[in-house]
Amino acid sequence: MTTLRIAQAQMPVCTDRKKLTQALETLAQQAVEGNADLLALPEMFCCPYDVDCFPVFAEEEGGPLWQTCSDLSRSFGIYLSAGTMPERASDGKIYNTAYVFDRNGRQIARHRKMHLFDIRVKNGQHFQESAVLSAGNDVTVFETEFCAMGLAVCYDIRFPELFRLMAARGAKIVLVPASFNMTTGPMHWELLFRSQAVFNQMFLIGTAPARDADSSYVSWSHSIITDPWGNTISQTEDKEELRITEIDLALCDEAREQIPVLRHLRDDVYSLKERRR
Amino acid sequence: MTTLRIAQAQMPVCTDRKKLTQALETLAQQAVEGNADLLALPEMFCCPYDVDCFPVFAEEEGGPLWQTCSDLSRSFGIYLSAGTMPERASDGKIYNTAYVFDRNGRQIARHRKMHLFDIRVKNGQHFQESAVLSAGNDVTVFETEFCAMGLAVCYDIRFPELFRLMAARGAKIVLVPASFNMTTGPMHWELLFRSQAVFNQMFLIGTAPARDADSSYVSWSHSIITDPWGNTISQTEDKEELRITEIDLALCDEAREQIPVLRHLRDDVYSLKERRR
Repeated sequence: MTTLRIAQAQMPVCTDRKKLTQALETLAQQAVEGNADLLALPEMFCCPYDVDCFPVFAEEEGGPLWQTCSDLSRSFGIYLSAGTMPERASDGKIYNTAYVFDRNGRQIARHRKMHLFDIRVKNGQHFQESAVLSAGNDVTVFETEFCAMGLAVCYDIRFPELFRLMAARGAKIVLVPASFNMTTGPMHWELLFRSQAVFNQMFLIGTAPARDADSSYVSWSHSIITDPWGNTISQTEDKEELRITEIDLALCDEAREQIPVLRHLRDDVYSLKERRR
Repeated sequence: MTTLRIAQAQMPVCTDRKKLTQALETLAQQAVEGNADLLALPEMFCCPYDVDCFPVFAEEEGGPLWQTCSDLSRSFGIYLSAGTMPERASDGKIYNTAYVFDRNGRQIARHRKMHLFDIRVKNGQHFQESAVLSAGNDVTVFETEFCAMGLAVCYDIRFPELFRLMAARGAKIVLVPASFNMTTGPMHWELLFRSQAVFNQMFLIGTAPARDADSSYVSWSHSIITDPWGNTISQTEDKEELRITEIDLALCDEAREQIPVLRHLRDDVYSLKERRR
């Protein structure tokens, strides 16, 4: 089977854990009713996107919110890309971490945001994740019943190296929990998703929080799916929405066969390598 | 000074060398009258884009057409990005080669297309450059009075590695003689120029031949300039046109300062290197 159905939850950020659990159950129920195979949540769905909040909401891997996500995926028999949440590691460092659970509630992937978001756009967005977060050091690709998938978080999408390395490890889909803002969103959101998709001839699934104009960081929202030909096949607006989209992995093989860029890489002239593998 | 003026000649392919010389003189005259600093020609401006024609029109470096281009840049005191022409090397190999001349007619750069264009799109464009062409092996960056510039040819633009390496060597402008077609042009032309510009926060100058619907390979045309923020600041249609555009290199510094992706590269996790340097 080469098709799968992706449910993207463009949900509001929710800091109340009881309400959040209920909201997630409702979303999972709707996803399953829509025959979705995978439910994708946004970046920092459980915590305001604010450096002062990350330490307050951080939990260890296996902590209460992680457990809620694991239980959810098992109860509903669905893959869960659990957006990102602040993770407190055993050494006290805090990461912006994406977990993925399989249909049995087993964690099958963890990606710690590798490129921290430190920008200062004149008359636009300022942010400095590195004030409190540490950066992950691993390229993340994992197997599913459909295909190999990769994981990246938001600002990671500005780095072609990371996406090329995921493609090289066989990823045909990359899940990207993200939250662009009102400066970089209109400028670059769709462009970056389309281009990483076309460079590597794979699907990108970008899932963002619904917009809250009153929050300190206002999300561009616009949860998106781009295909291996670089087309935007789904894009929401700014409101809360559960969007289900069917994708056909045969498009990857078709694009890679017809414009074989991955076979045309000049490994004899340049080399892109992971240092730790 | 951080501004320069680029004249892009979206000219018809011309196989008659006498007429071509006259056409080039007219274009250079118009460029100089428009205060342009650099005149850019399209890919294969002197030869039909056809594998059967490349060997017929190929000349050695320093050959008659090369000399015409050198003379032109010296006579008019203008930088000349001499599109590309088929080059016959001393060992008999043929390349799709871009030369650049300075205001004194001196060759300051040569880029042999590094990624050969072998595609077979279903119900769309087929082409196989590798049937007669050899691929270049060098990343090309050169100095000018304005800034360091890079050179790439058409299909090279699908490879983020090459553009990243040019940015790493200091390029703020990449000249891209190119000729996309009626399949890949509408799909990917602007997307690729915008994305390579935004990933590396530099200007890309894509210059294509005017469209000839009767030729065996129909050019998408649409000569384009994209800026370091990923904006398309100039784009022609399909007709013959000399388009002059002023660009401000301060935009490079501004983009790189405000969203410092080039400083955020994770060289400790992945490494992209030229093998021969």
